[in-house]
Amino acid sequence: MSDQDPLIIFTPSGKRGRVPEGTPVLDAARRLGVDLDSVCGGRGKCSKCQVAPGYGEFAKHGVTVARDALSAWNEVEARYDRIRGLKDGRRLGCQARVMKDVVIDVPPESQVHKQVVRKRAELRDIVLSSPLSLAYVEVAAPDMHHPSSDLDRLLDALKAQVGLERLGIDRHLLPVLQPTLRKGKWAVTAAIHVDGDPRVVALWPDFFEGPLHGVAVDLGSTTIAGHLVNLVTGEVLASSGLMNPQIRFGEDLMSRVSYSMMNPGGAAEMTRVVREGVDRLIGELVAEAGIGAETLLDASFVMNPVMHHLFLGLDPYELGQAPFALAVGTAQRMMASDLGLTIAPGTRAYVLPLIAGHVGADAAAVALSEAPHRSDDLVLVVDVGTNAEILLGDKTGVLACSSPTGPAFEGAQISAGQRAAPGAIERVEIDPVTREPRFKVIGCDLWSTEDGFRTAVAASGITGICGSGIIEVVAEMRMAGIVDPGGLIGAPEATGTARCIPEGRTYSYLLWEDGDRRITVTNGDIRAIQMAKAALYAGARLLMDKRGVDRVDRVVLAGAFGAHISPKHAMVLGMIPDCPLDRVTSAGNAAGTGARIALLNREARGEVEALVRRIEKIETAVEPRFQEHFVAATAMPNAADPFPILRSVVDLPEVDFNTGGSGDGGRRRRRRG
Amino acid sequence: MSDQDPLIIFTPSGKRGRVPEGTPVLDAARRLGVDLDSVCGGRGKCSKCQVAPGYGEFAKHGVTVARDALSAWNEVEARYDRIRGLKDGRRLGCQARVMKDVVIDVPPESQVHKQVVRKRAELRDIVLSSPLSLAYVEVAAPDMHHPSSDLDRLLDALKAQVGLERLGIDRHLLPVLQPTLRKGKWAVTAAIHVDGDPRVVALWPDFFEGPLHGVAVDLGSTTIAGHLVNLVTGEVLASSGLMNPQIRFGEDLMSRVSYSMMNPGGAAEMTRVVREGVDRLIGELVAEAGIGAETLLDASFVMNPVMHHLFLGLDPYELGQAPFALAVGTAQRMMASDLGLTIAPGTRAYVLPLIAGHVGADAAAVALSEAPHRSDDLVLVVDVGTNAEILLGDKTGVLACSSPTGPAFEGAQISAGQRAAPGAIERVEIDPVTREPRFKVIGCDLWSTEDGFRTAVAASGITGICGSGIIEVVAEMRMAGIVDPGGLIGAPEATGTARCIPEGRTYSYLLWEDGDRRITVTNGDIRAIQMAKAALYAGARLLMDKRGVDRVDRVVLAGAFGAHISPKHAMVLGMIPDCPLDRVTSAGNAAGTGARIALLNREARGEVEALVRRIEKIETAVEPRFQEHFVAATAMPNAADPFPILRSVVDLPEVDFNTGGSGDGGRRRRRRG
Repeated sequence: MSDQDPLIIFTPSGKRGRVPEGTPVLDAARRLGVDLDSVCGGRGKCSKCQVAPGYGEFAKHGVTVARDALSAWNEVEARYDRIRGLKDGRRLGCQARVMKDVVIDVPPESQVHKQVVRKRAELRDIVLSSPLSLAYVEVAAPDMHHPSSDLDRLLDALKAQVGLERLGIDRHLLPVLQPTLRKGKWAVTAAIHVDGDPRVVALWPDFFEGPLHGVAVDLGSTTIAGHLVNLVTGEVLASSGLMNPQIRFGEDLMSRVSYSMMNPGGAAEMTRVVREGVDRLIGELVAEAGIGAETLLDASFVMNPVMHHLFLGLDPYELGQAPFALAVGTAQRMMASDLGLTIAPGTRAYVLPLIAGHVGADAAAVALSEAPHRSDDLVLVVDVGTNAEILLGDKTGVLACSSPTGPAFEGAQISAGQRAAPGAIERVEIDPVTREPRFKVIGCDLWSTEDGFRTAVAASGITGICGSGIIEVVAEMRMAGIVDPGGLIGAPEATGTARCIPEGRTYSYLLWEDGDRRITVTNGDIRAIQMAKAALYAGARLLMDKRGVDRVDRVVLAGAFGAHISPKHAMVLGMIPDCPLDRVTSAGNAAGTGARIALLNREARGEVEALVRRIEKIETAVEPRFQEHFVAATAMPNAADPFPILRSVVDLPEVDFNTGGSGDGGRRRRRRG
Repeated sequence: MSDQDPLIIFTPSGKRGRVPEGTPVLDAARRLGVDLDSVCGGRGKCSKCQVAPGYGEFAKHGVTVARDALSAWNEVEARYDRIRGLKDGRRLGCQARVMKDVVIDVPPESQVHKQVVRKRAELRDIVLSSPLSLAYVEVAAPDMHHPSSDLDRLLDALKAQVGLERLGIDRHLLPVLQPTLRKGKWAVTAAIHVDGDPRVVALWPDFFEGPLHGVAVDLGSTTIAGHLVNLVTGEVLASSGLMNPQIRFGEDLMSRVSYSMMNPGGAAEMTRVVREGVDRLIGELVAEAGIGAETLLDASFVMNPVMHHLFLGLDPYELGQAPFALAVGTAQRMMASDLGLTIAPGTRAYVLPLIAGHVGADAAAVALSEAPHRSDDLVLVVDVGTNAEILLGDKTGVLACSSPTGPAFEGAQISAGQRAAPGAIERVEIDPVTREPRFKVIGCDLWSTEDGFRTAVAASGITGICGSGIIEVVAEMRMAGIVDPGGLIGAPEATGTARCIPEGRTYSYLLWEDGDRRITVTNGDIRAIQMAKAALYAGARLLMDKRGVDRVDRVVLAGAFGAHISPKHAMVLGMIPDCPLDRVTSAGNAAGTGARIALLNREARGEVEALVRRIEKIETAVEPRFQEHFVAATAMPNAADPFPILRSVVDLPEVDFNTGGSGDGGRRRRRRG
C-alpha cells in the first residue's frame, strides 16, 4: 500500500489502514481484521455487511471524508434497496468501494461477535460466537468431462468461497443434497457447526437469511426449564418450564436412584420419560417463539449428576453409593437425536461437564456464569437447592463441593412449609421490642399489618411459609430473642410474648391465626432449618479450610431460591460466612445463564471444560473436618465462628433457653449442638 | 547400552541390539522396533508374545547362545503352561528375560502385521493391519479423594498402559461401562478402532482373547456375496451369497433407477430390501463361521454407483441421466447401524470410494487388488459384467472408464443363452477342417465326443450356452471360417458344412441336436456378442488413446465371468487388445479381493482413496472417438487394429460371406461394420 492509497478507518474498533482505490469495504474490513459479518460472500444478497459511512471532518482521526469517498450505488445496491430497503445512510459493505479516505462505522447488527450486555457489574458481557453460522455459496454444476460428486463440488465451493477446509457433512443431508442443489439452481445456504470437527448440518436451496436458533435447557430434579434463543442476537425468544415427569418415580434424586435399583428397566424408563419431557418442552418453545423448527440447530444442557446419567441413558446406580463413581463426566457433544429428541435432524446437543459425583453440570454452568476463576477477590458461590453446590475461588484457583442440605430450604420438612406460590408467606419482620410479627405473602405487596391486606389476600388465602419466608422468620426470631443460638424457642415467660405457645415438650411461635386456622414455627421447624443451613455452611467452611482462609470477600447466591433469600437473614442464621452484607449478591438462575452462555459462545465451552478439569473437587463425605464444622454450624449463627461483621450491623441477643423448664427437646438439642 | 550388555537378535526381521541384562524379550522387541504382538501389556495373560529362542552356534549372526541365555520359567509362565499349554520350545516374551546373547525367532502368529501370501506372482502380499485391535488394561478403582469418572480412568489406563492418546468411546458403551469394569474387577479388554478418530468400540470384562472378525461384502446388482474373515490371521471363515432382493424391482440397474423415478418412495423401498438382504447374509455368515456376533466389528463394502446410492439411502435418480452426477463418491466411514445393519452395536462400516458416475467402488476394489498403479508395465484391467469397468495404467498413472456392454456376456440376449449352471455349454472346439464341434458342459469333465458323455450329462441335460461358452463358440467359428470378420455366418456351400443351416435370411450354426431338440448359434447371437465386445474394446481403446499407446503389456480379466473366459477366444473376438496370450491372466473376483484387502489393511484404505482421486476418469459418452472405436471393433477381431501378435499364433481365415447370396442380413451388417 502506498501513502497515496485511500485511508479507511473503522469504528468502533478504531482499526485503520490504506487499501488500493476501488477496494470493497468488506474486503478492506477482512484485510484489517475488522469484525464485519457476511453470509453471502459479498454477493449483495444477505445485507449482513451493512455499514454506515461518516462524512465531513473527523478531527479525532485526522481525516476529512468527502461525499464521494465511497463509490456511488451500483445496480446490486440499488436493487437491494428497491426490494428489501436499505436504512438511511447505510451502504452494503460488499458493494461500496473505497475511493478516498473514509470513516466507516460498523453497527452492532453487522458484527459477528456482538456482545450481550449483562446487568450485574461484576460480570463480563457475553460475546456472541455460536458454533453455528450460515454460508451462502454457488456450487459448480456437474460436468461429464470432469466427473465429481455433488458433495465434492459443494465442499469445494465452501472451501474456495468461505475458506472452510476439511468440512464434514451430516449423513442425514446426503439424501437431500442433490434435490436441494437443483432447486437452488446450484446456489445453496449451508449451516456450518464448528464445535468439534466442522460439519455442514443443514442446507437450504439458494439464499437463506436465518436466523438460526438454539435452546438452553436446565434439567432439574423437579422442573425442566428451557430458553429458546436467537443465536445471532442472543435474544431469548421464549422461555418455558414443566415438571420433570420423573417425579412419579420419586420426589428426590435418591428415591429415583432407588427406583432404578429395585426395578429392572427402571433406569431406562426414567430415561424415556425425561427425554419425552425435554422433547415436549422444546416443542412448546418452538411453538411459542413461532420459529421454523429446522432453524433450531443447537441445544445446551445442564443438570445434576443423577439427572445427567438418566438423561444420557446411563444407570445412576453407582451414584447412589460410595464412592459415587460417575460413568462419564466430561462434556458431551452429540446429535440431539442421540438423546431421543425430535428436533431438526442436524441439531447438536452440548452437555456441560460434571464436576464430580455430587457436583453436576449445573454447578459447572454456575461457575461459567459467575466466573470465580476470573475473580480478583475471593468469592463464594452457593447454588442453593436440595443439594447445595458450593464453589470458592478466585483467579488463582477454584474449589468445589456439594453438601446435602435436604429439602428444608424449599419448604419441605417444615410444618407449615410449602412451595413458593400465591398465599405463601415470603417476607417476615418481628418487632424486637413487642415480638409482634408482620409478613407479606406471595401475590400481594402489602404487609400484613397494612390496611387492605385482608381484602388483597382474600383470593389466595394465607396458605403456609415458603423457603425464603422460613429463613426470614427464623432469623427474625433469633434477632428478637425468641429463639436462642442453640435453636430453642423460649417460653412466653422468658420471651415476654404470648405468641410462644407450648407444643409438646417445646414451644412454637405463632406467626398468624384466623379463627382456628394458624401458622406456627415449631421447634422442629427450627431444627430442620438448622440441619440444612449447617450442612451448607460446613461445606463452605471446608472449602475455606482447604483454601487456608477464614473469610471470603464476597458471596453469590445462585439458584431460583437464592434469588429470594435476604442476605441479612441468611447470615443471621449462619447459612453463609460472615462478610459485608453489600457483598452478598444474588445471581438468579446462574445455571440457566451458564447453559445460555455455552449455547451462545463456543469459546465458553472450552473455558468451562478447562475450568472443570482444574477445579479442586472436595468430597465432603470423606473429610473429617466436615462433621466438626457441621456441629459448630448448627448454632445460629455459629458456635465457633464469631461473625464480627454481621454483629456490627445487627443485634443478636445472647439468650439461652436451656436453663431448665424448657423441656427435653431443648436438652436434646443442647447435647447435639 | 554397553558392550557388556547381552546381544539380542530377532528373526526373521534380523533386527539386533544390546539390552540391559534382565530385560524382558517383549520390552527388547519394542525398543528395537520388532513386530511382536501383545494384547495384555505384558501380564502373561494373552500369550500373543510367544517367541521361540534358538540355542547353540549361530555362525550367520556370529553368536553362540547358551542354554541359560534366557531366565528360567517364572510362576506366570509355569501357570500359563499348566492351564493353557505352551508349545514346545516356546516362551512368553513378556516373562522371559534376556540374560546372555540370544537369538529369538518371532513366529508368524506372534506378529501383529503378518502377511497373507497371495497366489499370483504379480501381486503383492496383504499385510494384516486391521484398524481393530484388542487391548487389556487394569483400570484404577474410583477414589473419593480424587473423584473422576470411570470413563476417565479407563482412558487414563489405555493411555498409560497401551500408549493410546485422545481416544474416544462409542456412545453405546457408556451404559455398559460401569457394570463391565466391576464385573472384571477393574480389568477390561477394549477393542480399539483406529481408522479415523481412534475409538473404543467394544468392551469385555477382564481378559478377552479374541479374535475379532470382519466381513467383506461385494454388493452386486444380481448377487450379494460376503466373506467373513478372522482379522488376526486373514483367514476366510465363511463365504456366502444370496440374490440381491432388489431384483424384483428390475433385473438391471437402469430398470431400478426407473422404478425409483416412477414410484414415490421407490428408492427408499429398494434401500430397505437391499439392507435387509445384506443383514441376512451377514447373519448367515456369522452362523456358518460359528463365531460370537459381538466379535464381528468391521465390515467393508464394494458396489457399483447405483447400488452404492441405494445402499446408502440416496436416490439414484441423477445416475439415470446425463451428466450422471453422484451425490457422494468419497469413501464412507460409518457405523454399520447407520446402514440399518443389526450386527454388534460398535461394528464399523467402510464403503470404498466410487471412481465416477459409472465406475463404482467395485472398480476401485479391483484397482486395489490388481494395483495397476504399482505396476511397472502397462496393464489393462477389465472387470467384465453387465457394465465393463476398465482400468489402464502403470506406476506413472491410471485411467478408468466404464462401457455399457449389456448382458450378452452373461448369456442374455443369446437365443440359447443361459446363466452358468449344470447343463450349460461352457467350452467349445470346432475342427478347422471338418468344422465339426465338440464341447463340454458345466458339471461334466468329458468332451461331448468322448465315451460316456451322454451318460454323464443325463442328469443335467444339455440346456444352453453360458457366457464363456458363447465366446468360445463364436471365436471357434471365426477360426474355422464359419463366420467372417464382419460377423456373417456363411452358407453350407461356402463353409462346406451342413451345420450351417438357413434361418430366415441368414444362417445359424448347429452346435448340437438330439431328436428335435437343438442348440444353434444364430447370426443374431453373433451380432449381440459383436455389440458387447465392441463396447468393451472401444472403452479400452479410448483409454489407450488417452494414454497415447496402441498396445498394452498385459491384460487382467477380473470378475467371476472373467475367471472362465479363455484368453485366446476373447482375443480372437477382439474383446481385448492384442497382446501375448500368456500375458492375459484372470484375477477372479478381484472386487471381492479388494474389499477383503480394505477390511484387513487400514493403509490400503488410504491407498485406494488416494488412488481414486488420482485416477483420470474418462466418460465414454462424451468422447467422440468412442463411437469410431466402437464401429471398428464390431469386426472380429477388429477392422482398424491389426492384432499381429494374435495372428502369429492363430489362423484367422479372411473369408467374406457378403459376396451375394447370403441374404439381406449380411448386407445390413456390412453397411454397419
